[in-house]
Amino acid sequence: MSRLDFYRSLAVPGDRRILFMVLDGVGGLPHPETGLTELEAASTPTLDALAWRGETGLTTPVLPGVTPGSGPAHIALFGYDPVEHQVGRGVLAALGVAADLRPGDVAARINFCTLDGDGNVTDRRAGRIGDEIGGLLAQRLDAMPDPQGVEIEVRHVKQYRACVIFRGDGLEGNVADTDSQQTGVPPLAPVSREAGAERMAQIAADFVERALVELSDQPAANGILLRGFGGYTPLPSMGSLYRLEAVAVAAYPMYLGVARLAGMEAHGVADDPDALAGKVLEMGGKDFVFLHYKSTDSRGEDGDFDAKVAEIEKADGMLARLVEEFDVVMVTGDHSTPSSMRSHSWHPVPLLIASENCRAHGREGFGERACAQGVLGHVRSNDILPLVLAHAGRLKKFGA
Amino acid sequence: MSRLDFYRSLAVPGDRRILFMVLDGVGGLPHPETGLTELEAASTPTLDALAWRGETGLTTPVLPGVTPGSGPAHIALFGYDPVEHQVGRGVLAALGVAADLRPGDVAARINFCTLDGDGNVTDRRAGRIGDEIGGLLAQRLDAMPDPQGVEIEVRHVKQYRACVIFRGDGLEGNVADTDSQQTGVPPLAPVSREAGAERMAQIAADFVERALVELSDQPAANGILLRGFGGYTPLPSMGSLYRLEAVAVAAYPMYLGVARLAGMEAHGVADDPDALAGKVLEMGGKDFVFLHYKSTDSRGEDGDFDAKVAEIEKADGMLARLVEEFDVVMVTGDHSTPSSMRSHSWHPVPLLIASENCRAHGREGFGERACAQGVLGHVRSNDILPLVLAHAGRLKKFGA
Repeated sequence: MSRLDFYRSLAVPGDRRILFMVLDGVGGLPHPETGLTELEAASTPTLDALAWRGETGLTTPVLPGVTPGSGPAHIALFGYDPVEHQVGRGVLAALGVAADLRPGDVAARINFCTLDGDGNVTDRRAGRIGDEIGGLLAQRLDAMPDPQGVEIEVRHVKQYRACVIFRGDGLEGNVADTDSQQTGVPPLAPVSREAGAERMAQIAADFVERALVELSDQPAANGILLRGFGGYTPLPSMGSLYRLEAVAVAAYPMYLGVARLAGMEAHGVADDPDALAGKVLEMGGKDFVFLHYKSTDSRGEDGDFDAKVAEIEKADGMLARLVEEFDVVMVTGDHSTPSSMRSHSWHPVPLLIASENCRAHGREGFGERACAQGVLGHVRSNDILPLVLAHAGRLKKFGA
Repeated sequence: MSRLDFYRSLAVPGDRRILFMVLDGVGGLPHPETGLTELEAASTPTLDALAWRGETGLTTPVLPGVTPGSGPAHIALFGYDPVEHQVGRGVLAALGVAADLRPGDVAARINFCTLDGDGNVTDRRAGRIGDEIGGLLAQRLDAMPDPQGVEIEVRHVKQYRACVIFRGDGLEGNVADTDSQQTGVPPLAPVSREAGAERMAQIAADFVERALVELSDQPAANGILLRGFGGYTPLPSMGSLYRLEAVAVAAYPMYLGVARLAGMEAHGVADDPDALAGKVLEMGGKDFVFLHYKSTDSRGEDGDFDAKVAEIEKADGMLARLVEEFDVVMVTGDHSTPSSMRSHSWHPVPLLIASENCRAHGREGFGERACAQGVLGHVRSNDILPLVLAHAGRLKKFGA
């Protein structure tokens, strides 16, 4: 019996409400002068109070030493094995704009780009065209006639970014990016990376060729780059696995996409603590609310220690408005993003679960070193959801 | 996707240098009078400073409660699953003397022994004959004519110890030891332990019979005992898995053997901290240096608490000469060898990783109890290598 089937066999309905809050990239490293991490330096009265009455620990997103991207990190948080369930970025982008993906579809991300007279890329972001032009051009690509036996859908994502979905019999998604990540050279051809993907590669090449004709009237966005090809295989939904009515509240399409992949009803709002908290408060009938806060990661990637501290404090304020509405509150990150490294890292992530049935240990605060001493110890990220379900009374006894 | 294939898919080249130092059997148990373990009692300024600025934890070599031999303990340290990759002692002995093993070869250890007129073993170590006689006798056994269809190579190891390699089509290594570990009885016959190994057992029996004739002129070493039969299946090398230029520096053939099994270039030196450190300092071009120190284990097996403390202090002094040459320093043991038990044990082993990206926690010292509170928590020994690779920037992000 698979791990998921085992937990599915234990799931029971219930009415305790779960807040599943992810502070993107929240884990950090000590500041060389103070010796405190971003989380340890931040003033976080709400998190501290939850840590005081709840249980804390550290979580490893994928495997020891592995630095995860946001996709696999969230797939793990939602209880799935992120190595077994690898999902292409194209699929996540398509789900992020609520495209109606079906099993077997292949999706890829599109960047509009600028090509010179020789066909070399001069700007991989087409002068950062805005939503209006980007949306219009995506519509034009979508309106191109489909080739025999294939349906092609193009959806705008944001600014110079879009995505494309290929639907047809026997399409295999393992096709290489056409974006070489460089300028001064032409885009790469979409090459099959395994037997069976040749037809998909050919369809993609034909799509690019027709797109160049369609975009030839454009001064900046006269080319496209394709990345993150992958086939869509739905995950067993959190509803079917755990009998949860799960919803997601997030500002960025990527996180809405991965939530939809897990079968959640996803609500996009402005990237603002008030908007996020307000939307969560509208979700009164739902028993599981995934709330995603991006800016902690963004400031870490900027290398701005103090700004990341400020974002953690904003998230703490947002949480203060929500705590009373839920029976179980879980707070963690999808991965660490230490400001000193300006990137995601492999370091384990602080974890906090508070409910009425906790071995509260009264350690001070919610920081990396305090959580390392927490009663939850070290867990894998895909252990978090079962723990949260247990606190919500949603897993029945195993055996008599 | 297997765990090794997964890590392989993330490995990238780099230039940060890794010191991977194994203090054999370093873990211990408290002295009944002082309440301190060997490691806690030792004065270790270098290890303490690394623990202060690095990350510590405890590592379980194989599985909870399992006391490992040196072979599987090192196979785990090198990142492989020691239960999946079981390697006979004969193979490790042959690799230890740099024998040219090929896939499908079967190897076994040889002890020269003394037999009385009735063929009973009177001394399992042939009066501890020295290297000169041992080497000569191994040569004579090697020079015996090979039977039809099989090549047999005999190599001297040390004193009364040698090894034998059988090469031929379809040889299976699962043959029982001929050493009953007793005196006053004849050696056992080499018996097949699974279907398919009957031919190998027959070849071994024939080899023993001819060896007795060849050695009949010897006063002490007139017999042989065979142990640790096993077939050779190379492990995927650390070079091919992780793009490492890995080298080993050790005094004992066994550890050179297991390092060669993992694809390392192995350098044997005298069993002396100066010689070991000197050889490590010659390895300037290599990005991964495995350094093995044996005496901590030997004194633990002697049951000599104070002598083990002294060896830990010598190792600390050796480490002091090396730290500045490396970007990432890892120190652990392959297993625990408490003086009070005079043997290997199952107790988890202190672990230390120091690099520029550490959640330093400033706990005092590098001891069993301090490490139990460390930020790394409890890991398996085969998690150590991926963590070290992460600290060296040698694992790229998984997914976007």
